[in-house]
Amino acid sequence: MIDRLTEKIRKTQAPIVVGLDPTMKLIPGHLLKRAFAEYGETMKGAAEAVWQYNKAIVDAVCDLIPAVKPQIAMYEQFGVEGLIAFQRTVEYCKEKGLIVIGDVKRGDIGSTSEAYATGHLGQVQVGGTMCRGFDEDFVTVNPYLGSDGVKPFIKVCREERKGIFVLVKTSNPSSGEFQDRLVREEGGRERPLYEIVGEQVAAWGEECMGTAYSNVGAVVGATYPEQGRILRAIMPKTFILVPGYGAQGGRGADLVHFFNEDGLGAIINSSRGIIAAYQQEQYAKYGEENFADASRAAVLAMKEDIAQALAARG
Amino acid sequence: MIDRLTEKIRKTQAPIVVGLDPTMKLIPGHLLKRAFAEYGETMKGAAEAVWQYNKAIVDAVCDLIPAVKPQIAMYEQFGVEGLIAFQRTVEYCKEKGLIVIGDVKRGDIGSTSEAYATGHLGQVQVGGTMCRGFDEDFVTVNPYLGSDGVKPFIKVCREERKGIFVLVKTSNPSSGEFQDRLVREEGGRERPLYEIVGEQVAAWGEECMGTAYSNVGAVVGATYPEQGRILRAIMPKTFILVPGYGAQGGRGADLVHFFNEDGLGAIINSSRGIIAAYQQEQYAKYGEENFADASRAAVLAMKEDIAQALAARG
Repeated sequence: MIDRLTEKIRKTQAPIVVGLDPTMKLIPGHLLKRAFAEYGETMKGAAEAVWQYNKAIVDAVCDLIPAVKPQIAMYEQFGVEGLIAFQRTVEYCKEKGLIVIGDVKRGDIGSTSEAYATGHLGQVQVGGTMCRGFDEDFVTVNPYLGSDGVKPFIKVCREERKGIFVLVKTSNPSSGEFQDRLVREEGGRERPLYEIVGEQVAAWGEECMGTAYSNVGAVVGATYPEQGRILRAIMPKTFILVPGYGAQGGRGADLVHFFNEDGLGAIINSSRGIIAAYQQEQYAKYGEENFADASRAAVLAMKEDIAQALAARG
Repeated sequence: MIDRLTEKIRKTQAPIVVGLDPTMKLIPGHLLKRAFAEYGETMKGAAEAVWQYNKAIVDAVCDLIPAVKPQIAMYEQFGVEGLIAFQRTVEYCKEKGLIVIGDVKRGDIGSTSEAYATGHLGQVQVGGTMCRGFDEDFVTVNPYLGSDGVKPFIKVCREERKGIFVLVKTSNPSSGEFQDRLVREEGGRERPLYEIVGEQVAAWGEECMGTAYSNVGAVVGATYPEQGRILRAIMPKTFILVPGYGAQGGRGADLVHFFNEDGLGAIINSSRGIIAAYQQEQYAKYGEENFADASRAAVLAMKEDIAQALAARG
């Protein structure tokens, strides 16, 4: 799957993933009104609005980008109905030729991680029949439980030719609380925990290689460019999923160190900056009705910002 | 909610939580056959079998125990249909007076954790209406992203009088890979990461106290009794959820250090050991048809094992 992602990034010339993270506050009023008229102010109504919102954005940007990243929490907040909208979104994006990264941040002990891997990437045996659950192409994985929490995902990735991105250094302000702790290693050397995790991700990655990059990627926040540079070196064959661009403060110039010399090796996520572009002053001219056109303009601007930053790197 | 849990533990004299973690291999054949006859070998068929299995076990043990802990991964493996069975299980257990600990191990950056907290413990605003998602009483939370990933859960706990259990030291064999890393602190002292996390859990707990214990609990695996003793001291007002009893190798005698002098402060989880007791040699006499009676016998045996261990402690 990492080879497909790399190929699609080359084709679109856009190392960009759009985060489909809908909340009630981001969805334009006319979509809410229509959905509530049909289903009432219920979870079903909310889920219908989410789906219509996603569909319009995907239609408007799908030719420009290689991938989308729905954040499952934004669907889970609406219970089962929200998860139906999540599944519908995953299916629709795949129909449109997009690669789907399920931002699920799952991770548990062995047998439980196996169930998550099955539900999100693989197949479960029901009697004599194999059935598929949410069926994303990639998912994000939390490493706090160690190898036996991550390896079941890798096993399914190998069987299904899919991939994962493991959290290494997240984009949020307090990510350093545990991830930056200085850890003593054999020989007395000290390094932050995220480097140890990064090294482990590179080792896991060897078990599931694509052509140039591994199907085991890493998540490293755009908000920590210096750590990005170090982790890029520690994990040379690891594709890095970089959240935190735009609304969280990251800019194109911060991102160059996440890329390898080949201009690959990283994919930058923007969520609110794209899907709620219509709420920003610079795209206000589109108007709420044309929110999807504003999203398209924001993708083009982001693509340009990153291309310029990479070109300036020389 | 921690006060309700404490009260129910006192009343049942059983610091026990039954893990409702159904997989196809654990569900008795006659339940599968009946569900497949009605819905085919489909996700819906699987979910129906899961629900019937859970219901029978809950009916058989609900007077003996204070709480259940459904592991959501085991439902998520069956996609949306599985999550409908999860929701149905949560609702049914609450109707039966049981406290429900959703073992979801969620955790993300601030705004995303907020959505998880809303979906599992709180209410989401849809238009002018407040709606509830899965509505468990407690959930488990992964701390790898630090305070701003955990605090949104605490906020909802305060609003809704609910609780969380934060992963500190998990029960799996490779939990030590990152959790046991020696971290250097100010003054040059070195401690394993799980102690630092434990200390942070105790601090978070101060923000959401019940009467004697906090609504912010911790997860510490039964398989690491020595670490349990240390963490018990570091987090005196923290209730500890202890997985790993039975199938994972923990025994009553290993567990005494997780409890405070008041005989409270810990709740021990067993999943397969209870729900699939009928597959064990010692309960084989019940027969597959009477699997729920075997589960009841296993709960009684576990209760006795723990009571004896606590009594032997003196």
